[in-house]
Amino acid sequence: MNLLKVDMAEGRTRVEPLPDDKVLGGRAIIDWYMTEHTSPGVHPLAGGNPFIVAAGLLAGTTAPSSGRLSVGGKSPLTGGIKEANVGGAFGHKLGRLGFLGIVVEGKASQWQVMRLDSRGSTLEPAGDILGLDNYDACEKLRGRYGQEIAVIITGPAGERRYANSTVAGTDVGGRPCRHAARGGVGAIMGAKRLKAIVIDDAGTSFRKAVDGPAFRAAVKGALDAMKNAPYGQKLVTHSTASFVDVDNNRGSLQTNNYRLGKFDKVGGINADRFIELNKDRGGSMGHGCMPGCVVRCSNIFHDAKGRYVTAGLEFETLALLGSNLGIGDLDAVARMDRKCDGIGIDTVDTGCAIGILNDVGLFQFGDAARAEALIEEIAKDTLMGRVLGNGADVTAKVFGIDRVPTVKGQAIAAHAARSSKGWAVTYATSPQGADHTAGPVGAGDHLSPVGQVAISRISQIVNTALDATGLCHFTFSYKYPEIIAPLINAFYGLSLTYEDLLEMGKEMLRQERAFNLKAGIGPGADRVPEWMRTEPLAPTGGVFDVPQEEIDGFFNF
Amino acid sequence: MNLLKVDMAEGRTRVEPLPDDKVLGGRAIIDWYMTEHTSPGVHPLAGGNPFIVAAGLLAGTTAPSSGRLSVGGKSPLTGGIKEANVGGAFGHKLGRLGFLGIVVEGKASQWQVMRLDSRGSTLEPAGDILGLDNYDACEKLRGRYGQEIAVIITGPAGERRYANSTVAGTDVGGRPCRHAARGGVGAIMGAKRLKAIVIDDAGTSFRKAVDGPAFRAAVKGALDAMKNAPYGQKLVTHSTASFVDVDNNRGSLQTNNYRLGKFDKVGGINADRFIELNKDRGGSMGHGCMPGCVVRCSNIFHDAKGRYVTAGLEFETLALLGSNLGIGDLDAVARMDRKCDGIGIDTVDTGCAIGILNDVGLFQFGDAARAEALIEEIAKDTLMGRVLGNGADVTAKVFGIDRVPTVKGQAIAAHAARSSKGWAVTYATSPQGADHTAGPVGAGDHLSPVGQVAISRISQIVNTALDATGLCHFTFSYKYPEIIAPLINAFYGLSLTYEDLLEMGKEMLRQERAFNLKAGIGPGADRVPEWMRTEPLAPTGGVFDVPQEEIDGFFNF
Repeated sequence: MNLLKVDMAEGRTRVEPLPDDKVLGGRAIIDWYMTEHTSPGVHPLAGGNPFIVAAGLLAGTTAPSSGRLSVGGKSPLTGGIKEANVGGAFGHKLGRLGFLGIVVEGKASQWQVMRLDSRGSTLEPAGDILGLDNYDACEKLRGRYGQEIAVIITGPAGERRYANSTVAGTDVGGRPCRHAARGGVGAIMGAKRLKAIVIDDAGTSFRKAVDGPAFRAAVKGALDAMKNAPYGQKLVTHSTASFVDVDNNRGSLQTNNYRLGKFDKVGGINADRFIELNKDRGGSMGHGCMPGCVVRCSNIFHDAKGRYVTAGLEFETLALLGSNLGIGDLDAVARMDRKCDGIGIDTVDTGCAIGILNDVGLFQFGDAARAEALIEEIAKDTLMGRVLGNGADVTAKVFGIDRVPTVKGQAIAAHAARSSKGWAVTYATSPQGADHTAGPVGAGDHLSPVGQVAISRISQIVNTALDATGLCHFTFSYKYPEIIAPLINAFYGLSLTYEDLLEMGKEMLRQERAFNLKAGIGPGADRVPEWMRTEPLAPTGGVFDVPQEEIDGFFNF
Repeated sequence: MNLLKVDMAEGRTRVEPLPDDKVLGGRAIIDWYMTEHTSPGVHPLAGGNPFIVAAGLLAGTTAPSSGRLSVGGKSPLTGGIKEANVGGAFGHKLGRLGFLGIVVEGKASQWQVMRLDSRGSTLEPAGDILGLDNYDACEKLRGRYGQEIAVIITGPAGERRYANSTVAGTDVGGRPCRHAARGGVGAIMGAKRLKAIVIDDAGTSFRKAVDGPAFRAAVKGALDAMKNAPYGQKLVTHSTASFVDVDNNRGSLQTNNYRLGKFDKVGGINADRFIELNKDRGGSMGHGCMPGCVVRCSNIFHDAKGRYVTAGLEFETLALLGSNLGIGDLDAVARMDRKCDGIGIDTVDTGCAIGILNDVGLFQFGDAARAEALIEEIAKDTLMGRVLGNGADVTAKVFGIDRVPTVKGQAIAAHAARSSKGWAVTYATSPQGADHTAGPVGAGDHLSPVGQVAISRISQIVNTALDATGLCHFTFSYKYPEIIAPLINAFYGLSLTYEDLLEMGKEMLRQERAFNLKAGIGPGADRVPEWMRTEPLAPTGGVFDVPQEEIDGFFNF
């Protein structure tokens, strides 16, 4: 498979084969390229920081839910390596075109759109899509390039190089509702003056496996396993919104600026409410974000008049823009989500940034109008918007706030660290900063400090390897040995064992950590904020009490 | 000697002896306390981050120029350990009262002033000095506590917890013109709600040496050496402003946002201009900042009507608020310096922050009115002022600027790295961030990359040890073995060798680096911004070309 190298300063693209001595896909391509070809000291917004887009090993194949896209570079938010993972249609099409990666370097003098199809790639002036809401920009791009394209795009926030900018990707319906949201990857793209990449796979076919019959058998095995997975059906009927109740019942739902683990208005934002509103309005559950998705964990939300508001209104958003702001109103949260998607900013860091303003009297919990107005400031590029658009850490600095729920400069996600202690270990140790995709911890006694480092470690190793395959995390990563290895082996003619795949995950984590170390982020950054060790979280009363010495041994593998 | 421990939350002070198994003064007290008693993960603005004030080993003695004060804690600007060094009258008086250190922890509910005299210490409501310009606040404090007091105070900037806030100290004339300026130590003080410490040494005497005759001889030896030092007299007649021409001639004077090393309007801000204006206006050179100062490197500046404007208008300020902003007007620079002193913000990071705004069209070089207006925004606490008041690094983030002249979050000082490469090694490696006091490099071929690591290393080691003594850096640190050891030995009855003193400096640097590592700042942060390696600096054409591998070996001692 190939890598597309793009030099924005020269306006040239070049096709290179990926190294054939390595098994490289998705996040592993980012890790490899950053390790071998990028100076760790590069400024995240400099031309020398590559903007990397990489599809997984199984992209463009008939493997189910295999089109996840990794988007990365050196993060403007964390200052370390970044892989932001996103669904949508782009990854699958990229694979079908014979590419697993695109690496963009240098800065163009004028904004460009890159077009990629079976005839090759071109850079063209971005024209009248600059500054537009992502939805409007994608509609114009479809008008320009055809209805069948998939798009990844940096929004107005990324054009302005906000450190909390996303790269939006269109879903199967062409909506830019999927976001490589974390770490500010939209600003890396924007700094290159690359507004969008438009991809059209017309005339291509599914990629062919080396061992066709074995691959078909492996696909069938994967489908069976995924259909029978423990909470698979619940995801289809209730979407990721189902986790709102799970976490609330556990006392680990971020509420009121990370001050509570249980939300008294949870019934206003949970899956039941979503389903209830859908009935009369025409929204839906069971929405798949990628071609070939069997997980179908996403959703579409309509307003009271039955008009589309947003899609992909996921758990993390419901928590950070909902309960974390004390807002128990699904309509308001949906509007905010849609606004964030249009600007191209991460809902997690945005919700965190608005929440901490409560500490300095600039936001009151439950004030949805104020929250929407603050997001509107980001849209309008006011100075307040610039501050918020750079995420929670910069907001905390500007306002002198010392209770800051971030790790390595990135906001802690929706599972409250003090009542979900395995998650907290993931937040503390991931080279990606406090990231909800780095290593979920769904099992065990969430309130006990015992064993959490071990469970986070295996989760991070498995999920990191999974990010190289393009498979959705909801393919139930703990089934990895039974599902994943046979797919890769049959497709590529390999004979990887479970141990080999674990080793792949370990090696990727080692590369990421080594990059961060060279970039100036020391091992001492592997910790949750200190106040989480002393301030009890109601209602569980939990404080974070996994010994730091044990956390410091996380990377002993 | 004693340590005064202050618990702001409880409103209690307690006197403790300093450990008697260590030779601890000044910066060494900060290093010791942070190493032994402070969690490296503490938030810089949290109650658990100690605000430390420490006088040197020779404070309160008859040793010349020995009253320098170290002010520190975990820096809000760098996230690492910080010692900001300042002259003025406080250090000497602290020594005479029997203390070498004050450690302040916890947060008061109401703003306090601490009063310290021969009867003890008390905390009293800060009252009507809150929010005032430092000059006005100090005048009120003198009205309240007597004309003979010395004061250290956090200004309006520190009250608001700006990461670029200073702790101002009064000079021998009671003016708050001396600043522990770097690293945001004013915000550490402000976060405790400790507005000022007022000290009165009435009724005390010079501290007594263990070996009086030997100490008197050592003092005489020091005085003789300092009087005969190579550029000692020039400092008296031309003040630190004399370095403006030195650096300009070398092509290493920061000019126009670090884009040039030579300033075409240098004649408007150099020492000759200063002296010329002084003639008719009544300003002066040869001003000593501390009791017993024989260096007398400072100055006083008056306006065209003969009215006092500012004192301590030093080289770094002339460069960062003058040439670096393209402003060749000493009157304008003096007004800006006075304004920064009144607010309590560092002129170096402020000049850097204003300069980088040129990259996004928000500041034009030479526009003194605009620069003054931006500083006024900081005074008025507008949102723009909050951004600028948090220093160059936050300003760069908010405005998406990628050419950022900072190391470890702190602005590079007045000696241009690309034409003064030894200085650049100091900026890169010092655990204090890019600091002009960490290890000056005055000798050698400034344009050659060869040997700069070695010369910065010995300079940092020597100057770090010097910061434990309370002696001014202009006591010509390379005379260290002849001057310093005899003073310490005679005073304390010790028999330290030159090697012992070097080992003290090394151990302090090791402690600082270890703290930073635990705080999350890895060795990879020891580098200058990458653009300095590729963008030549006119007129020398120098790029920074000391090999990074050699810099990475800096701490191999």
